[in-house]
Amino acid sequence: MADKKDLTIVCFSGDFDKVVAAFTMATGAAATNRKVTMFFTFWGLNVLKKKQGRAWLGQGLMAKTFNFLMGGRKTLPLSRLNFGGVSAGLMTGMMKKHNVATLPELIEAANALGIRLLACEMALHILELGREDLVDEVEDIVGVATFLNESENGHIIFV
Amino acid sequence: MADKKDLTIVCFSGDFDKVVAAFTMATGAAATNRKVTMFFTFWGLNVLKKKQGRAWLGQGLMAKTFNFLMGGRKTLPLSRLNFGGVSAGLMTGMMKKHNVATLPELIEAANALGIRLLACEMALHILELGREDLVDEVEDIVGVATFLNESENGHIIFV
Amino acid sequence: MADKKDLTIVCFSGDFDKVVAAFTMATGAAATNRKVTMFFTFWGLNVLKKKQGRAWLGQGLMAKTFNFLMGGRKTLPLSRLNFGGVSAGLMTGMMKKHNVATLPELIEAANALGIRLLACEMALHILELGREDLVDEVEDIVGVATFLNESENGHIIFV
Repeated sequence: MADKKDLTIVCFSGDFDKVVAAFTMATGAAATNRKVTMFFTFWGLNVLKKKQGRAWLGQGLMAKTFNFLMGGRKTLPLSRLNFGGVSAGLMTGMMKKHNVATLPELIEAANALGIRLLACEMALHILELGREDLVDEVEDIVGVATFLNESENGHIIFV
Repeated sequence: MADKKDLTIVCFSGDFDKVVAAFTMATGAAATNRKVTMFFTFWGLNVLKKKQGRAWLGQGLMAKTFNFLMGGRKTLPLSRLNFGGVSAGLMTGMMKKHNVATLPELIEAANALGIRLLACEMALHILELGREDLVDEVEDIVGVATFLNESENGHIIFV
Repeated sequence: MADKKDLTIVCFSGDFDKVVAAFTMATGAAATNRKVTMFFTFWGLNVLKKKQGRAWLGQGLMAKTFNFLMGGRKTLPLSRLNFGGVSAGLMTGMMKKHNVATLPELIEAANALGIRLLACEMALHILELGREDLVDEVEDIVGVATFLNESENGHIIFV
């Protein structure tokens, strides 16, 4: 099994449905002995913020406003049919009803399976976020070149 | 030509324009001797539903409502400039005018070229859809691990 | 370094944030000695239009209207929190503040690094755009089969 391809997922979108898809693919790959790396950038960083709701992060007014509007892990919108934010909750209800892993469970599974969580240096810079704003599970803050090097031996999926 | 890379397309989005892009890449790849697999999940399942318009599929009220709102192959929205659903029709008109294959023609071509259509087990589960709700052309219902194994020797494109 | 994988980016989306991500990955890959190709299709073509604002391009009324609404490089919307178009400007301000390359600078860098810019034949056809409507930096207008052949030895990222 050691020769299976690695999987790198670029988690750019912070849409609830796409984040669930990203973690489902990531954990599925890790559970079948693939080395999996997830690289979070821009909207995707919302998943990694310590503050799971809306919060005024950053220094400048602009960054503060953007971070507030972008929100955190608990305010991820659905990419369609969002209905002002209730849909992610409804979807989680449907997932629970059918014993499908919810987003918090998927993130926990990702950690348990040793999936590496990387955050994008440049996006953090633009949004004025620092290491202290991110959950402890984030292994490193890296640039594009590093992420590409990590992905040499496998697939890259941009979500 | 036998050594060309396989192509797996994850059809996550049910946006009309992205579905057209997915089938264009898929048929183009198959026509040039690549083994092509399309894996449909979440919004992408709308393309595979037997009911091509809006329909109350599933058992529970929540699933029924979601499936109704998600619609089918004939109600796919444009990812932008949708204008309440008329744009997909306008776009189809422009494709016909220029003798470019329309979506139904692309799907037919995909079948003729032997492209495998797979549906995502977990997404069907959440949306309370069964094999009987999907068109006959669907070859199998599989999980993430199977889809990843099928993709080992090629590219994965997430649309 | 010669054995690093090539990178092909399919720039389908014309969202400002995704285009910035596409060019950031492209220039980062090229700067670390990868052969990089960018294939622009549908909304992504807005980046390559000579007219950087809204313009009535194409022959028929439908194409003219679509092109006008799609806009150009200077009217790319943010994929979320667009606020009627002001957000791309705000984002550019935040990028400048932190000395991060802005979109025009990234495009210039892409040219300087020898990244190949290809435009999708079929999408141009549907939108009734010709070579004369695109910036000089576009190297060629190609179909899906050509783009796939160019991508054989590397990653494909669909943005």
